Amino acid sequence: MAERLSEDARKAAVKALSGWSEVAGREAIARVFTFRDFNEAFGFMARVALVAEKNDHHPEWRNVYKTVEVVLATHDAGGVTERDIRLAEAMNAIARQFGVA
Amino acid sequence: MAERLSEDARKAAVKALSGWSEVAGREAIARVFTFRDFNEAFGFMARVALVAEKNDHHPEWRNVYKTVEVVLATHDAGGVTERDIRLAEAMNAIARQFGVA
Repeated sequence: MAERLSEDARKAAVKALSGWSEVAGREAIARVFTFRDFNEAFGFMARVALVAEKNDHHPEWRNVYKTVEVVLATHDAGGVTERDIRLAEAMNAIARQFGVA
Repeated sequence: MAERLSEDARKAAVKALSGWSEVAGREAIARVFTFRDFNEAFGFMARVALVAEKNDHHPEWRNVYKTVEVVLATHDAGGVTERDIRLAEAMNAIARQFGVA
């Protein structure tokens, strides 16, 4: 099982992740992605879904038209782990392909 | 543009929609769909996304692993319209194919 990151490690990891921040009152990280339209937003989600399923590590996310709000945490570990950081990195990489930095 | 349903029409429509209810404090309708796993939940979302895009009428929705929480309203009309009822019906029909009544 992935180990929960220490506060320092979590803060350092988030700092290195473009667009991500810590969630207030909860050990989790979050980002809002804004695309051009629903086609792009759901296209992003479809690509992320395949990555999530392959790694058996899934996001909490909300989609309203062209925005996708994501929260990542590892429930088993009670906090943020390397698995969350890797998924956040994968999401950023996919978003960049849609021109979202 | 689709017209906002009257309170009576909205209540009657929701009553006829398995699993749906009105949202407290907001003119909108909501349902939580629970599937077997993420594969089914996202499969449901992918099918609904195609319907939504085809009709240019999109849900607000949140996915956490096997659950999909949906809220429907027509922003332009400031309430619930026939477009929401039709999308809710389409979601129920797709969910039924996953064995979710």
